Amino acid sequence: MIFSVTILGSSSALPTSTRFPSAHVLNAHERLFLIDCAEGTQIQLRRMHIKLAKINHIFISHLHGDHTLGLIGLISTYNLMGRKSDLHIFAHKELENNLLFNVNFFVNDLNFKIVFHALVPNKHQVIYDDGKIIIESLPLKHGVPSTGFIFREKRGLPNIRKEFIEKYSLSLAEISALKNGSDLTTADGQIISNSELTYFSSEPRSYAYCSDTMYSEKLIGMINNVDLLYHEATFERADEKLAKQTGHSTSAQAATIALKSDARRLIIGHFSSRYKSVSKLEQEAKEIFENTIAVKDGDVYDIQIKRSEK
Amino acid sequence: MIFSVTILGSSSALPTSTRFPSAHVLNAHERLFLIDCAEGTQIQLRRMHIKLAKINHIFISHLHGDHTLGLIGLISTYNLMGRKSDLHIFAHKELENNLLFNVNFFVNDLNFKIVFHALVPNKHQVIYDDGKIIIESLPLKHGVPSTGFIFREKRGLPNIRKEFIEKYSLSLAEISALKNGSDLTTADGQIISNSELTYFSSEPRSYAYCSDTMYSEKLIGMINNVDLLYHEATFERADEKLAKQTGHSTSAQAATIALKSDARRLIIGHFSSRYKSVSKLEQEAKEIFENTIAVKDGDVYDIQIKRSEK
Repeated sequence: MIFSVTILGSSSALPTSTRFPSAHVLNAHERLFLIDCAEGTQIQLRRMHIKLAKINHIFISHLHGDHTLGLIGLISTYNLMGRKSDLHIFAHKELENNLLFNVNFFVNDLNFKIVFHALVPNKHQVIYDDGKIIIESLPLKHGVPSTGFIFREKRGLPNIRKEFIEKYSLSLAEISALKNGSDLTTADGQIISNSELTYFSSEPRSYAYCSDTMYSEKLIGMINNVDLLYHEATFERADEKLAKQTGHSTSAQAATIALKSDARRLIIGHFSSRYKSVSKLEQEAKEIFENTIAVKDGDVYDIQIKRSEK
Repeated sequence: MIFSVTILGSSSALPTSTRFPSAHVLNAHERLFLIDCAEGTQIQLRRMHIKLAKINHIFISHLHGDHTLGLIGLISTYNLMGRKSDLHIFAHKELENNLLFNVNFFVNDLNFKIVFHALVPNKHQVIYDDGKIIIESLPLKHGVPSTGFIFREKRGLPNIRKEFIEKYSLSLAEISALKNGSDLTTADGQIISNSELTYFSSEPRSYAYCSDTMYSEKLIGMINNVDLLYHEATFERADEKLAKQTGHSTSAQAATIALKSDARRLIIGHFSSRYKSVSKLEQEAKEIFENTIAVKDGDVYDIQIKRSEK
């Protein structure tokens, strides 16, 4: 089962000749979740041959243009393509009126429903759960209400260790009960604990998206042990003061969050256009958290299935 | 003096993996005129290393998203870059409220003035004249009010034929009068006509932008003898009915307008994403008007100075 992030845009507010502004797409079990939707997002999706029609859920971190201005173009394109299925948009509530106004202005006869889900600022809570994937909001610290997202695979039902199926001649009813967490009572009245009889074939995977935000240790507990952490890194360490003033982070701060939250891997982006190269940003992060990559538009980060021990 | 068009986007409403939606930029004597401003225009400007700050005038043909959705991003970028100079936007009047609403929503503390010039639908008139360049509106036929633009160099003052300067010992006052159109009265009372004494070193150049429009012979007189004609060519000849229904043209129709208006060169664009290749569109136009090119994003079309005979 795929669990993979594609970087559609990695600049901060000012795009450059090689970087579009913010948007990621997560493919989780062939469900595509679009995260932020800056100007040009639909174009990047085309260029990367990602099927627009497979996106049904869009998550907007905050209402700055460099994270939202691609929405109307994408909605307009969906309408021209004959979309019928609902489009779910998760964003801070002020976006809803703006969307309505612009859809009325730019889109003729919308053929599908936009289902708006208002994010609650400063709230860490489950905002989506389809049984396979669960998504939580992550309160961030920025000049305007800003929300990150953590996408987690849900743990499925466990497997029964084969040797015990024969040993105890388990019936279908008993197997079902075990999968749902019951202990086993054998014919002779012996109780065998569930954990002895069952195992999980893999560990659930997770991806956290944290942008835009200044350094915030409150994140650490919420994203603990994440497999892949994206944390904005607008500035170099020398510009830490500027980062704070503008509600952003340095790459060293992003790396500190990765280190303190025991992330497995860190990717950084949202780079200020003031830096001709991002190698210093990457280097400053690596000094704190070695497993860091400064992303480029078009990069794909797969999170491999993590097999559990049987 | 440069007079050159760069194609920023050449798709119709649906962008493709290689084509952004509509935007051109005309460099006329180092004044940059942006014509239409679809989503991604500011990104294309960056990719083509065109200085954003040199654009002071934007011309919007009509209020469909694939010609306008890049405006707010561009305005926002200008503000972040610290722009102070006025930005002139020529568009149909309904855009003004939409701009105001979105600028209020997405842009903090606009540092410069947006000067809105309302285009009058169905009116062929001069909308800009700075002494060097003159721009006229061209009424188009589309589902909504749509306006093309013709950009013309103004003819400067003529030169005096050198041999006559000596022959008649022309004074500065006489030269100035001749340059401004007077005839010459010689010392012995002979009148020599202005045309005999003066010449223009070059012919004024022109560029017409006609998109979106269905086939309209009304254009012919307005763009007569244009050096470079851009005419939309959304469809192949076989889809002529569809072109009419949707307010668009086939490439054969674009070529017919070029032929009938005695254009020197034709460039076509705004191609429907239904065609994998545009070679048939180009071929069908060439059969009618040989000097046709189907544009690609990034193409630059220079209009060379046309030397007059002395």
